[in-house]
Amino acid sequence: MKKTWMLRQLIQSKKMAFIMEAHNGLSAKIVQESGFKGIWASGLSMSAAMGVRDNNEASWTQVMDVLEFMSDATSIPILLDGDTGYGNFNNARRLVKKLEQRQIAGVCIEDKMFPKTNSFINAESQPLADIDEFCGKIKSMKDAQMDEDFVVVARVEAFITGRGQEEAFKRAEHYRQSGADAILIHSKRSDISEIESFMKEWGDRLPIVVVPTTYYKTPTSRLQELGVSLVIWANHNLRASIEAMQRISSQILQDANLLRVEGSVAPLEEVFRLQDAEELKLAEQRYLPFLKDPRL
Amino acid sequence: MKKTWMLRQLIQSKKMAFIMEAHNGLSAKIVQESGFKGIWASGLSMSAAMGVRDNNEASWTQVMDVLEFMSDATSIPILLDGDTGYGNFNNARRLVKKLEQRQIAGVCIEDKMFPKTNSFINAESQPLADIDEFCGKIKSMKDAQMDEDFVVVARVEAFITGRGQEEAFKRAEHYRQSGADAILIHSKRSDISEIESFMKEWGDRLPIVVVPTTYYKTPTSRLQELGVSLVIWANHNLRASIEAMQRISSQILQDANLLRVEGSVAPLEEVFRLQDAEELKLAEQRYLPFLKDPRL
Amino acid sequence: MKKTWMLRQLIQSKKMAFIMEAHNGLSAKIVQESGFKGIWASGLSMSAAMGVRDNNEASWTQVMDVLEFMSDATSIPILLDGDTGYGNFNNARRLVKKLEQRQIAGVCIEDKMFPKTNSFINAESQPLADIDEFCGKIKSMKDAQMDEDFVVVARVEAFITGRGQEEAFKRAEHYRQSGADAILIHSKRSDISEIESFMKEWGDRLPIVVVPTTYYKTPTSRLQELGVSLVIWANHNLRASIEAMQRISSQILQDANLLRVEGSVAPLEEVFRLQDAEELKLAEQRYLPFLKDPRL
Amino acid sequence: MKKTWMLRQLIQSKKMAFIMEAHNGLSAKIVQESGFKGIWASGLSMSAAMGVRDNNEASWTQVMDVLEFMSDATSIPILLDGDTGYGNFNNARRLVKKLEQRQIAGVCIEDKMFPKTNSFINAESQPLADIDEFCGKIKSMKDAQMDEDFVVVARVEAFITGRGQEEAFKRAEHYRQSGADAILIHSKRSDISEIESFMKEWGDRLPIVVVPTTYYKTPTSRLQELGVSLVIWANHNLRASIEAMQRISSQILQDANLLRVEGSVAPLEEVFRLQDAEELKLAEQRYLPFLKDPRL
Repeated sequence: MKKTWMLRQLIQSKKMAFIMEAHNGLSAKIVQESGFKGIWASGLSMSAAMGVRDNNEASWTQVMDVLEFMSDATSIPILLDGDTGYGNFNNARRLVKKLEQRQIAGVCIEDKMFPKTNSFINAESQPLADIDEFCGKIKSMKDAQMDEDFVVVARVEAFITGRGQEEAFKRAEHYRQSGADAILIHSKRSDISEIESFMKEWGDRLPIVVVPTTYYKTPTSRLQELGVSLVIWANHNLRASIEAMQRISSQILQDANLLRVEGSVAPLEEVFRLQDAEELKLAEQRYLPFLKDPRL
Repeated sequence: MKKTWMLRQLIQSKKMAFIMEAHNGLSAKIVQESGFKGIWASGLSMSAAMGVRDNNEASWTQVMDVLEFMSDATSIPILLDGDTGYGNFNNARRLVKKLEQRQIAGVCIEDKMFPKTNSFINAESQPLADIDEFCGKIKSMKDAQMDEDFVVVARVEAFITGRGQEEAFKRAEHYRQSGADAILIHSKRSDISEIESFMKEWGDRLPIVVVPTTYYKTPTSRLQELGVSLVIWANHNLRASIEAMQRISSQILQDANLLRVEGSVAPLEEVFRLQDAEELKLAEQRYLPFLKDPRL
Repeated sequence: MKKTWMLRQLIQSKKMAFIMEAHNGLSAKIVQESGFKGIWASGLSMSAAMGVRDNNEASWTQVMDVLEFMSDATSIPILLDGDTGYGNFNNARRLVKKLEQRQIAGVCIEDKMFPKTNSFINAESQPLADIDEFCGKIKSMKDAQMDEDFVVVARVEAFITGRGQEEAFKRAEHYRQSGADAILIHSKRSDISEIESFMKEWGDRLPIVVVPTTYYKTPTSRLQELGVSLVIWANHNLRASIEAMQRISSQILQDANLLRVEGSVAPLEEVFRLQDAEELKLAEQRYLPFLKDPRL
Repeated sequence: MKKTWMLRQLIQSKKMAFIMEAHNGLSAKIVQESGFKGIWASGLSMSAAMGVRDNNEASWTQVMDVLEFMSDATSIPILLDGDTGYGNFNNARRLVKKLEQRQIAGVCIEDKMFPKTNSFINAESQPLADIDEFCGKIKSMKDAQMDEDFVVVARVEAFITGRGQEEAFKRAEHYRQSGADAILIHSKRSDISEIESFMKEWGDRLPIVVVPTTYYKTPTSRLQELGVSLVIWANHNLRASIEAMQRISSQILQDANLLRVEGSVAPLEEVFRLQDAEELKLAEQRYLPFLKDPRL
């Protein structure tokens, strides 16, 4: 089954779906093995994992390289957090071509300026993209895709930058008319009020995606009631790994041995299993059976 | 201070030193912040993080790209686990050039064949490199380095492949005479017997590096007594992150909310701190002071 | 039409076909515009263009990056000169996967050792691959391809290394039985005697590919009579560009002006035409019509 | 001698200097062998060689990869045509860091918007960068460089976009005060009038760089009289190679043999010489003397 079609089903289904953040091939595989039906390739997480900022310090092709590893390691669809599309419409439509070559199922672009800043930093002072310019970008991306099921999500940053409901709605509607397959309404409030008011006015014009990083205390059943299609857990694998690595590194430094650590980290065999070392052993028997020494 | 000189000091100092595994820019920074004086850029960990096997499935330039991020994110020296040097002497000396350009302080190469297999998989059946060929490789690398402090460590896999003490010692001595700056004696026993017998015969001919992944129960004070110079904790940040991501992903899938998770992962602010978002804010005030809107 | 199918037709057709060397996106497009039906992505030419040697000094992913630009710039099939497959069977089957993602139509691998040396340098002293090991490599590549029309050509270096007809035939036959889609018989003689004797014995067991770099004085009609399927002009765009750049650079240095040069190089407008600048102008009218200033 | 210092000397010397375009490792080496003292890494040429447009379709790290090959293949300084710096001040200062790691001697940035358009396409309609924003970019780059001799050239596009002498002068003076090491005054007229009037007013405030692509009929002695420091032959190796490859490809297609072509392209031995195959032979004797078969 095509990954694009799988993502489209997740977004269009009546049942609200959840996708989980990953930032490299390993975390992508872990997300899949956990049972999630899709992967959020987070811009924040990928940049943080590389050791740079979420301000387009990594080039867009460096992001493509990460995505290629993620896609190769998994069979569930990946939705890329594509920032602003890495430039103007021409960069954005080129991005679509490169994503399709790597079997990435869809991309979300946000209506801000290149280079972007994370939505949780200096949010109010961030300018939004010109509406017409952003609509042209969406159109160019939809025209560029070869696979009709490839998904383009338009992310509305109006609430994030304090522009309010009217601006958010106007933008969402324009993006819908330009061909977006879904709208991501982003909010940084700790309650759900902005999402709620938006959903009530929006109805079912187009599937809605949300990222409850700050309003995580709201039960997700409430989001389902409001008609949300897709919920993104946006950065929690990265944050889990940071906590774990900080803890283990400090403990090993302090102890100068592994006695307390060994039991709390994944066994070496689990690393090999995640890498599918077993398949290579079998392949060696198939393709190198004649050799006494299988590595020669 | 030059990173190469720092690594050389770690290796040549009387006091046994510890370095800790990292596999991307983020984990490298965490290792540095934990207080370690050096970083082990593990081939196993880097390949696992990418989602491929530890059999040179990632190209050597893909490894260089990871190292560049790691080096940029840190100020302590990085020792690369350089597998077999990714080919023959010509590939290995080219590697040295590329590492120096990225301020990597040293590289460890092992006396096996390209493409390599992890030392803990099918160990006995893995052939060793021809001694003369491997010595030529070491010589070519030492001749290629521009910075006299760049470190080349020769890793002896004789114990790993069941060849015993005599072979191990012979190889170590040849590699020393060919210009290696240190010898890594690898053992996969759960006790220290191989390391012990080797050290007793070896004395202080050249600094010795060990990787106590399997014999971790031996107190490191014993390694110090034996005269070991450098101890590598080889893959524990990776393994910590695997355990954490598997746990958090499963829990979020099951709960369909973040309530139990939020407190056990690093806060979002910690991600921004690790990325040094603050410096960018200050830089914007310096280089964009005239703009009402700092992002325009 | 699929590029793989187009290449398969070229190879299997009764009519002998010609393909022409290219080494980057630009030369690939020029080959296509000239009227050739296929492109030879030469290992020698790509490495020389990068400024490195034809000994796997560029990594295999750096070659993939070049191929991606070449494939994006053209619609005719590309056959990659894949050296030895960049390692063992596992590297070679991974290569197939990466080529298919980039719409490369086929790959030719040669029965030598990694890292490779160009066939025209020190030929006699180059060892050949073990036959069984090479057959296992071919099988693994054929099993790995997703598109049934993807082409694997096995290149026999027996004549090049002075092993003679018997060895050449034996190897070709083994490679055929292992699933190769065609055999490339390489010869460095200035006459066609080796090719001739091989073809007479081989008959039509499998399509034959040749590279008349040294025996170019033989009329190609003779190759057609012998039953050759595909002729590769292997490095002449590279060599034409070297001659031209050396001449123009020297002349400009000497003259300190462009007066004698301007008429003998392509006009600037031809550069823009090759880049398809016109399409972008039209796209700007489509996706940015609302802006007075089309670049804003 | 440091490449940065060599470039600085070229720019600051009383004697007008010439640098020549290159777009990959091969052309860079040819420029050096021709006798030029410096290399212009042209954005137009590099993008055209890749097969994409001069509108930032290649990512900035793909440009870095090309530059790394160019720098490794040569010992004379390279000045990068760095477009607009690939984003805002933060991207531009990051660029400086990456260039210094690759021993690139300097970079020229132009006062336009990202993504850029070639100066010879739709010139009048291209907006210029805000002066203060561009000055902040220059300052951030100068603050970022580690090597005090690294050169930042500010390119003034005021004439190109039809803004006239006053605007050109004002911008040049602001850029000078912000720390630029030289000013590139670009003109697309076929005569030298704009350059002339600028030079007369400018005097010797800062070294001036020009690109006589369109006004090439003016004797360069006139530029010397006006006090120009550096002349860039901006794209002629690329254009020479296009003419040559189009001619040779067409001829080979038509002839179906190499008889007329062989004498007009560089011999195969010249390719090997440019790759320095000889050094590898000598290195094999040094590092593999014990082997009967030097490739084993």
